[in-house]
Amino acid sequence: MAAGGGESNCQMKIVKGDFGYVLEDVPHLTDYIPDLPTYPNPLRSNPAYSVVKQYFVDMEDTVPQKVVVHLDSPRGVHFRRAGPRQKVYFNSDDVHACIVTCGGLCPGLNTVIREIVHSLDYMYGVNKVLGIDGGYRGFYAKNTINLTPKLVNDIHKRGGTILGTSRGGHDTTKIVDSIQDRGINQVYIIGGDGTQKGAAVIYEEVRRRGLRVSVAGIPKTIDNDIPVIDKSFGFDTAVEEAQRAINAAHVEAESAENGIGLVKLMGRYSGFIAMYATLASRDVDCCLIPESPFYLEGQGGLLEFVEKRLKENGHMVIVIAEGAGQELLAAESSSSKAESDASGNKLLQDVGMWLSQKIKDYSKQRKFPITLKYIDPTYMIRAIPSNASDNVYCTLLAQSTVHGAMAGFTGFTCGLVNGRHTYIPFNRITERQNKVVITDRMWARLLSSTNQPSFLCPKEVEKVKEEEKLKEQLLGAANGKTPASKTPALK
Amino acid sequence: MAAGGGESNCQMKIVKGDFGYVLEDVPHLTDYIPDLPTYPNPLRSNPAYSVVKQYFVDMEDTVPQKVVVHLDSPRGVHFRRAGPRQKVYFNSDDVHACIVTCGGLCPGLNTVIREIVHSLDYMYGVNKVLGIDGGYRGFYAKNTINLTPKLVNDIHKRGGTILGTSRGGHDTTKIVDSIQDRGINQVYIIGGDGTQKGAAVIYEEVRRRGLRVSVAGIPKTIDNDIPVIDKSFGFDTAVEEAQRAINAAHVEAESAENGIGLVKLMGRYSGFIAMYATLASRDVDCCLIPESPFYLEGQGGLLEFVEKRLKENGHMVIVIAEGAGQELLAAESSSSKAESDASGNKLLQDVGMWLSQKIKDYSKQRKFPITLKYIDPTYMIRAIPSNASDNVYCTLLAQSTVHGAMAGFTGFTCGLVNGRHTYIPFNRITERQNKVVITDRMWARLLSSTNQPSFLCPKEVEKVKEEEKLKEQLLGAANGKTPASKTPALK
Amino acid sequence: MAAGGGESNCQMKIVKGDFGYVLEDVPHLTDYIPDLPTYPNPLRSNPAYSVVKQYFVDMEDTVPQKVVVHLDSPRGVHFRRAGPRQKVYFNSDDVHACIVTCGGLCPGLNTVIREIVHSLDYMYGVNKVLGIDGGYRGFYAKNTINLTPKLVNDIHKRGGTILGTSRGGHDTTKIVDSIQDRGINQVYIIGGDGTQKGAAVIYEEVRRRGLRVSVAGIPKTIDNDIPVIDKSFGFDTAVEEAQRAINAAHVEAESAENGIGLVKLMGRYSGFIAMYATLASRDVDCCLIPESPFYLEGQGGLLEFVEKRLKENGHMVIVIAEGAGQELLAAESSSSKAESDASGNKLLQDVGMWLSQKIKDYSKQRKFPITLKYIDPTYMIRAIPSNASDNVYCTLLAQSTVHGAMAGFTGFTCGLVNGRHTYIPFNRITERQNKVVITDRMWARLLSSTNQPSFLCPKEVEKVKEEEKLKEQLLGAANGKTPASKTPALK
Amino acid sequence: MAAGGGESNCQMKIVKGDFGYVLEDVPHLTDYIPDLPTYPNPLRSNPAYSVVKQYFVDMEDTVPQKVVVHLDSPRGVHFRRAGPRQKVYFNSDDVHACIVTCGGLCPGLNTVIREIVHSLDYMYGVNKVLGIDGGYRGFYAKNTINLTPKLVNDIHKRGGTILGTSRGGHDTTKIVDSIQDRGINQVYIIGGDGTQKGAAVIYEEVRRRGLRVSVAGIPKTIDNDIPVIDKSFGFDTAVEEAQRAINAAHVEAESAENGIGLVKLMGRYSGFIAMYATLASRDVDCCLIPESPFYLEGQGGLLEFVEKRLKENGHMVIVIAEGAGQELLAAESSSSKAESDASGNKLLQDVGMWLSQKIKDYSKQRKFPITLKYIDPTYMIRAIPSNASDNVYCTLLAQSTVHGAMAGFTGFTCGLVNGRHTYIPFNRITERQNKVVITDRMWARLLSSTNQPSFLCPKEVEKVKEEEKLKEQLLGAANGKTPASKTPALK
Repeated sequence: MAAGGGESNCQMKIVKGDFGYVLEDVPHLTDYIPDLPTYPNPLRSNPAYSVVKQYFVDMEDTVPQKVVVHLDSPRGVHFRRAGPRQKVYFNSDDVHACIVTCGGLCPGLNTVIREIVHSLDYMYGVNKVLGIDGGYRGFYAKNTINLTPKLVNDIHKRGGTILGTSRGGHDTTKIVDSIQDRGINQVYIIGGDGTQKGAAVIYEEVRRRGLRVSVAGIPKTIDNDIPVIDKSFGFDTAVEEAQRAINAAHVEAESAENGIGLVKLMGRYSGFIAMYATLASRDVDCCLIPESPFYLEGQGGLLEFVEKRLKENGHMVIVIAEGAGQELLAAESSSSKAESDASGNKLLQDVGMWLSQKIKDYSKQRKFPITLKYIDPTYMIRAIPSNASDNVYCTLLAQSTVHGAMAGFTGFTCGLVNGRHTYIPFNRITERQNKVVITDRMWARLLSSTNQPSFLCPKEVEKVKEEEKLKEQLLGAANGKTPASKTPALK
Repeated sequence: MAAGGGESNCQMKIVKGDFGYVLEDVPHLTDYIPDLPTYPNPLRSNPAYSVVKQYFVDMEDTVPQKVVVHLDSPRGVHFRRAGPRQKVYFNSDDVHACIVTCGGLCPGLNTVIREIVHSLDYMYGVNKVLGIDGGYRGFYAKNTINLTPKLVNDIHKRGGTILGTSRGGHDTTKIVDSIQDRGINQVYIIGGDGTQKGAAVIYEEVRRRGLRVSVAGIPKTIDNDIPVIDKSFGFDTAVEEAQRAINAAHVEAESAENGIGLVKLMGRYSGFIAMYATLASRDVDCCLIPESPFYLEGQGGLLEFVEKRLKENGHMVIVIAEGAGQELLAAESSSSKAESDASGNKLLQDVGMWLSQKIKDYSKQRKFPITLKYIDPTYMIRAIPSNASDNVYCTLLAQSTVHGAMAGFTGFTCGLVNGRHTYIPFNRITERQNKVVITDRMWARLLSSTNQPSFLCPKEVEKVKEEEKLKEQLLGAANGKTPASKTPALK
Repeated sequence: MAAGGGESNCQMKIVKGDFGYVLEDVPHLTDYIPDLPTYPNPLRSNPAYSVVKQYFVDMEDTVPQKVVVHLDSPRGVHFRRAGPRQKVYFNSDDVHACIVTCGGLCPGLNTVIREIVHSLDYMYGVNKVLGIDGGYRGFYAKNTINLTPKLVNDIHKRGGTILGTSRGGHDTTKIVDSIQDRGINQVYIIGGDGTQKGAAVIYEEVRRRGLRVSVAGIPKTIDNDIPVIDKSFGFDTAVEEAQRAINAAHVEAESAENGIGLVKLMGRYSGFIAMYATLASRDVDCCLIPESPFYLEGQGGLLEFVEKRLKENGHMVIVIAEGAGQELLAAESSSSKAESDASGNKLLQDVGMWLSQKIKDYSKQRKFPITLKYIDPTYMIRAIPSNASDNVYCTLLAQSTVHGAMAGFTGFTCGLVNGRHTYIPFNRITERQNKVVITDRMWARLLSSTNQPSFLCPKEVEKVKEEEKLKEQLLGAANGKTPASKTPALK
Repeated sequence: MAAGGGESNCQMKIVKGDFGYVLEDVPHLTDYIPDLPTYPNPLRSNPAYSVVKQYFVDMEDTVPQKVVVHLDSPRGVHFRRAGPRQKVYFNSDDVHACIVTCGGLCPGLNTVIREIVHSLDYMYGVNKVLGIDGGYRGFYAKNTINLTPKLVNDIHKRGGTILGTSRGGHDTTKIVDSIQDRGINQVYIIGGDGTQKGAAVIYEEVRRRGLRVSVAGIPKTIDNDIPVIDKSFGFDTAVEEAQRAINAAHVEAESAENGIGLVKLMGRYSGFIAMYATLASRDVDCCLIPESPFYLEGQGGLLEFVEKRLKENGHMVIVIAEGAGQELLAAESSSSKAESDASGNKLLQDVGMWLSQKIKDYSKQRKFPITLKYIDPTYMIRAIPSNASDNVYCTLLAQSTVHGAMAGFTGFTCGLVNGRHTYIPFNRITERQNKVVITDRMWARLLSSTNQPSFLCPKEVEKVKEEEKLKEQLLGAANGKTPASKTPALK
C-alpha cells in the first residue's frame, strides 16, 4: 500500500523562508489541473459571517510544528492554517460529496459526520452528500445513504457511527472507479493510521487519472497514536470513561485482602489512554504501556513489585494497555503466527488475561493468597457518545476539513497543531506512529505519580534514547533541542 | 490595588533576539537578593526521573504567544517554559509553603491543592505546607490546616475547596506581615482576576521588604476570562455539566406549545461558557453573551426573533450568560447603584429572571401564549468535581508552579500557552480580561450553528472592530495580522 | 369538576366476603351495555405466551390495600388485580385507541407512551393508536399523531413527552364529542390529580351516552401525592436526580464560612421527594415540607436553628419542598390573590427565594455573616429520562392498563398496590391527596437523620393526630390500628 | 453446614389464627433465657420521636407473604413486622455489637454498615460497634475496626465495603468462641445465601451455649436470588448500571455489518438482573438465563435464531446471565471437575466467552461473516455506590435490623415483604433459592419484549410446571392459585 518514491516527491510541496522557516504545504487541485475556475466563497453573503470580516483565513497563515523554541532557534517546519478562503474551487451546486468511516469505533464519529453534512449545507449550500456504508468496501456496494441535515440532526448524541464501519476492504482501483462512476468530487475519509494510508493511495490514483476530486482525511484513533497532531477526537471522552473502570478496580481491590484490580485499556502500539487515565485517576499503582518494556520474574520485575506493594498497602490497581508486554506473550507461544485483522493490525493476544494468570501462578507458587479482579472496559469506552469537549473539537475539525476541500486542497489530513487547525500532508501523518516517549517528562510524571519502578535496566534506557535521537534526526527535526514528543493538549 | 508605575517597570524583564524575538521574562529572587545559594534539584536522585535525563527543562526554552505566523512575520513575544530546573534556590528542609484559594468555586480547586502538596512532598521532599483557611482573610486568622499528602489524598474526587474560600479580605500589609511572622517562603495563590491582582501586590510588597519568598499565582476562573492562557482549569468540566441544563431546557421546550427553555450560565464579562456550551449542545436557538450587545424591541430585536422562531419550530432554547444585557437592566433601574461584592465584582441583577419577564410581557401583549421555563444551574456546575481532562490539567499546572517556585521564580502566574505550560508575568494576566471577540471566527461559527441574527447594526460592528484593533496595538501585538483572540484550546 | 352524588354511586361496585373482605371493584363496559360479544385473548396464540399458561390472571385475584394486619384483623378493602384476561371485549381490528398526556413533565412519560403502543400492537395486534397533541385541549385541535411501534421505538431514552402536554383545557362535552367523532374506543389518559378527575368526568359522560369506550387513567405525579398506590412512576428517578442538587449545595456550603446551601425541590402539597431525597443523601441538616408547619422567629424557630447549626458545624444544607411554608408567605402578602394555573393548582410564590431573603435579613440583623447559595433544580429533574427502575415500572404499568381496557374495564386507574398492579376506581384516587404523615415512622426517621427539631408545639401535634384519625375513619379504614400512610415502596 | 432436624424444629415458632392465618415467628432471647430484664426504649425520650407516638410498632403487627388473594382464600403465612418496640432487652451501655460483611461486593454494603452504626448510636446510644475485618475469618483474626459515626459518615458515597470481605472461612466454634471472648452481644451478618446459612449455624451454637447474644442477618445478593423478600439491596443499582453495558453492546452491534453485542451479567442460579436489565433497556434481542434451558444447534436452536435475527435486522444484542447454559458447557468438558470457591459456589466457566466462540464457529461454518463484541461489566457493576433508591432501602433495612436486635429477637433475617420490613426466620431464607419462574408472567413479558423463541420443547415446559407445582406444595403454599414467584418490587 506504500506510495512509490516518485509520487511521494510530487506530494511534498516545500516553501522555505528566512531564519529557517519551512512550510510543508498540502497539494491543491491546481497542481495538476490548470485553469480551474474559482468562485467567491458563499459565506461572504451569509448573514452570520457578513459582519465578521476576519472570518476568512489569510492565505499566508501558517502554524509552526514546534513551539518550544530558543532565542536563536531556526524557525522550523510549519503547516498551513485551516479555515475558509475568500475563493473556492467548487460551485456549490456541482458538489457531490461522500463520507466514509473505517476501523474501530471512537467517540465523536457521529458528530464529525453530522458537522460535515451541516457545514456543507448551511455554509456552502451543498446538499448532495452520500454516506458510504460500512467502511471502504461500501464504495463498491450498492447501499448508500443520502445524508441530509435533518437525518443527521441528533446523531451526535449517540455513540458509534450511523454509516457503519469495517476494517480493510481497500481496493484502490474499485474505489476510484466508484468515485468516478458516481460523479463524486469531494471524498471525506474518517479513520486511523491504515485508513489514512488508504486515503493517500486514493489521492494518488485520483491525481494520476487527473480527476477534479478533493480527497480529505480526518484522523480517527482512540489510541491517540497519530503523529504531528495535538490529540485525536474522542480521546478526552475515552480517558474520562476509563475512570469508571479504574474506580471499580480500586473498590474491588480495597474490599479484598491482597486485592488486585487489573484494568486493560486501549492502546495497541501507544499507551496514551493508559497514561492519561492513570494521571487523571491517582488510584493506580502501576501503569504498563507498549513503549515501556517490563519483565515479570526476578529482582526488579513486575511480580516482585506486586508482592511488595500488596505487603505495604494491602491492595493495588494495575492499568495495562492492550499492546503492552506483547513481546513476552510472543516469546511464550511458539505458535506465534502473528495473525492480522483486516486492517492489517496484528491480532494481539489478551495481555490482561495473560497477566492475570501470571500473577495468580506467582501467588500460588509463593503461597501468598491474592484476590484478582480483571476488568476490560474497551467496548464500553469506545461506544459512548462524545463529551462536550470532544463535541466542540469534532465540530471545528469537520468545518475546517470542509473549508479545505471547498478551497481546492486535496491529499490532506486536517488536524490540530499547537491548538490551531491545520492542513497536513498525508505522508506526515502516516510515516510513523505517535508514541509515549518514555524518556520524556510526561512519563516521568506518571512514574512519580504511581511510584512504580521503571522496569528498565540502564542499558535499555540508553537504547531507547538512541532510538529517539535517531528518529528525531530522520524527521529532520534537528533544529531544536526539544524533541517533538507529542502528547495530547497538555505538554 | 493597582501597582504603581515604578513597580511595573521593575517587573518587566524583556530579552530581545533576532528576527523580532522578544522574551517577557518573569522575576526571580536573585533580581533583588544577591548571592543566593543554589542546590541540586532533588529530582536528580529520584528513581522515577533518574532515567529521564530530558526531564529538566532547558533554561533557554521559551514558548511564543502567537502561533499563527507568516513566512516573513517577526517572531514576537515569548514566555518562559515551565518545568523543573537542574538547580533550585530552596533547600527542601527549609521550605515552608502555604496555599490559599480565593473567590468563587470552580471544578478542580481540590485537585490543584492536592497536587501542590504531593509535588512538594514526593518531588522535593517538602513537608511543611500550610492551608490558609477561607481566602485572603485567612492569612490573619488563627485557623490554618497542615496539609499532608495523606490528608489530601482523595480530595480531588470532591467538588469545592477543602480550604474554604471567600471574596475580598485583601490587606497587603497584614498578609505580608503574616507571611513574615509564620516564616513562610513559598506562597501559592489560587484565584481569579482580582485575586491575581492581589497576588501581584503581595509580590511587590515582599520584594520591597527584600524577603526570600516566592509568590506564585495559579489562575482560576470558571468564566475563562483570563488573557494569554489557552484556557483555565475547570472550564471543560463546566461546559460538560452545562449540557445537562441545556438538555433539560430543550426537553421542557419541546414538550409544551410554544415552549421556551431559558438557561442562564456563568460569564460576568465574557461569554465563553455560554458559547462553548452552545456549540457542544447544538440544541440552542439563541446564545446571548456580554460581548455581543442586543436589544429587545422592534425590528431585528430579540423579542421579534423569539416570536419568529417559535412560529417556525414551535419551541426554542435560549442560553444567556449572566453578564449579558446588563446595560439594558441598568438603563431600566434608575436606582442602579452599581453595588459590588467583596471581590470588587459589580453585583449583577439576575438577567435570566429579567429576560423571562420581558418575554412573558411581550407574549401577553402580543396575545401569543408561551410556556417559559427558566433554569439557573450555576451552583450545580461550580460545585462538581473536575473531570478527567481537568484533573490532568490541574495536576500539570500544580507541578509546573511548584517547579517554578523551587527554581526561585516569583511574581509569576503559571499557565498553558499554545499547549505548553509557561511562567507569565503577573501584569500580563491582570491588565485586561479575556473576552469573546465577536468579529472573530468562533463567534461566527456560533451564529452559524444557532442561526440567530447578530443583533448588531453595521455601525456597532465597525466600533467593535476599531476597539479590537486598538487593543491589539496597545498590547504590542502589531507584529502579525492575526489577532490573539484567545479561545480555549481550539482555535 | 366534581362528579355528582348519583354518578359516584354508580361507580362504586362493592363485593363483600367473609372475615371482613371487601372488594372495591372497577366499572366494566357490560355494566351499562348488555350482551357485548367477547373474543379469545389474542395472547393465547402468541408464541411467547403459549407455554405460559399461568399468564392469564385469575378473575378472582385481588390485592388487599393493607398488609400490616393482626391475627384477628378483618380482611378489609381489596382491589382487582391487573393483568390479561382469557377473554377480551374488543376485536383487535376494531380498536381505535388514543393517548393523551396532561400536566407537568415527569420522567417516564415517553416510556409509558411507548409501551402502550407496543403492548397494543405486539400483544393485541392493534395498530390504530392516535396521539393527542398537547394535553386535553388537543382533543379538539386538528393535530394528532399516528403512533406506530417504529415511531415510538427509542422515545424512552428521551425526557419529556413526545405528545406535548399542557394544563387545563378540559371541556368534557367537546372531548367526548371528539372521541365519538373520531371513532375512538379506548382512551388512555396520563396525568396527575386534576387530570384523573377529568378522566373520571369523561368516563361519566361516556357512560351517560352509552358509548362502548374504555376510559383508563395512568396516574402521573412527580410529587407522589396520589393516594392508595405505592408510588408514582418517575419518583425514583426524581429522587436520584435531586441528589445532584443536594451534593452541590453541600459542596457550596462546606467551602464558605457559615455557608448555607438551600435546595428547593418539587412538592406542592406533599413532601415525598424532599423527604426521600433527604434520607438518600444524608448531607441535609433540615428538611421542610408542606405537611409539617414551621415558624421562623423566636425560640424553637427555624432561624434560631440555622444559627445554632452554623455555630456548631460551620455550614448547613436545607431542603425545602415548594409547597412548604406557604401559609407564612400568604400571611405576609396582603395582596395574596391566590392565583391558580390552568390545572387549577394554586400558583405558589417561590418559597426558596423567600426563605433565602429571610435568612439573609436575619443574618444582617444578628450581624452574623453567612454565605447562602440557593439552588432550584426543578426543571432539570423533571426533564430527564427515566432510570432503569422506572423504565420497568412504566412498562408494566402500560401493559397492565392495556390488558384492563382490552378486558372491557373502564373508569379505572392502574396502579401498584403493595407491589402488585391493580385496577382502582377513579374516586379512590381523586378523593384526597397522599401526604407525608408527620406522626408516622418515616418522618421520625427523617427527623432522626437530620437531627432537626420538629418545629411543632404539642398542641399542633395533637391537632395533626386528630385530623389523621378522622381521615382514617372517613376512609373506612377503621379495621386496623396501623394507618395506611402510603410511602413509596418502602414502609 | 445444614442444621440438624431438632434444631430446625426449635426454630419454627408457629402461631395460628382464624381463617387460615399462620404467623411464622422468629426466635427471641427469652425463648431460651428466662427472666431477662427489659428496659424502656430510649427512643421514647428522643426529641425526634417524642411527638410521634405511632412510631412504635404494635407487637401484633404482621405482614402476609401473599397479597394476591381470592374472596375465599385462607389468610396464609405471615411474618412479624419490623420496627422499634416499646421495650428493649438490652441496656444501651451494655451493648457490644459487631458487623461482618461476607461474599462478593454489592452496591449498598457501605450504606448498610453506616446505618447500623448510626442507628445504634443516634437511636439507642450504643457506641461500642466493632467492624470484623474481611469476612467470617476476621472473627478469629486480630484486626478489627472501631466503627464510630464519624468514621462511617461518608462511606455510603463509596462502593465496596470498608470492612473488607471474603468467601468461606466459616468455623462455627471459633467464631462463637470469639464472640464470647470479646463480649459481643449483637452480631450483624451481611451476606448472601451461604452467609445466611452460616449465620443460622452461629445462632444455633449461640443458643446451645445459652448466650445472651442476638444474631441478625441482612441478606445481600446482587443476584436477587433470596426467597421471600421483595428484592435485595443493590439490585436496582445493578440493573441501572447494566444499562451502560447493554447500550455499548447495542452501539457496537449497530455500527458493524452483522454486528452482535454480547453482554454477560451476574446471575449464577437466577436470571433476575439479566431479565430486568433487558426489560429496562428494550434494545435486547435475546436474553438467556439459568432458569430457561436453551440449545445451540438445529432447528429452534440459538444459533439458528441468531442467524435469522441478523438477516432481518443486520445486528443484534444478546444478554446472558453467568449461570445460563452451564449444563451445555459441562457436557462439553469431560474434565468438568466442578470446582468450587471458598463460599461453596461452583466455579462457573465463562459462558460469555464460550458462547462467543460457538457463534464465531457457526459463522465460519456457515460462511456468514459476523462481528461479535463481548462485554463483561460484572466488576464495574458490583463496585459502584448505591443509587438513591437503594440508599433509602439500605437505611431502613439497617434501622429495622437494629430495632429487632435491641428488642431481643435473634436468629432472624430482616427483609422487605410486600413493601413492609419484616423479621423472617433464617430457615425460610436459606431453604431454597429465589428463581425466575419461566412459566410466569414476568418471563412472558420478557419473551414478548425481545421476541425471542422460548427454546423450550413442550415436554420441558411440562417438566418445569410440575417442578414449580411441587415446590409450591412443599412450601405449604397451596392456599392460592397464584404462586409466589418473587420478583423485585413489581409483579
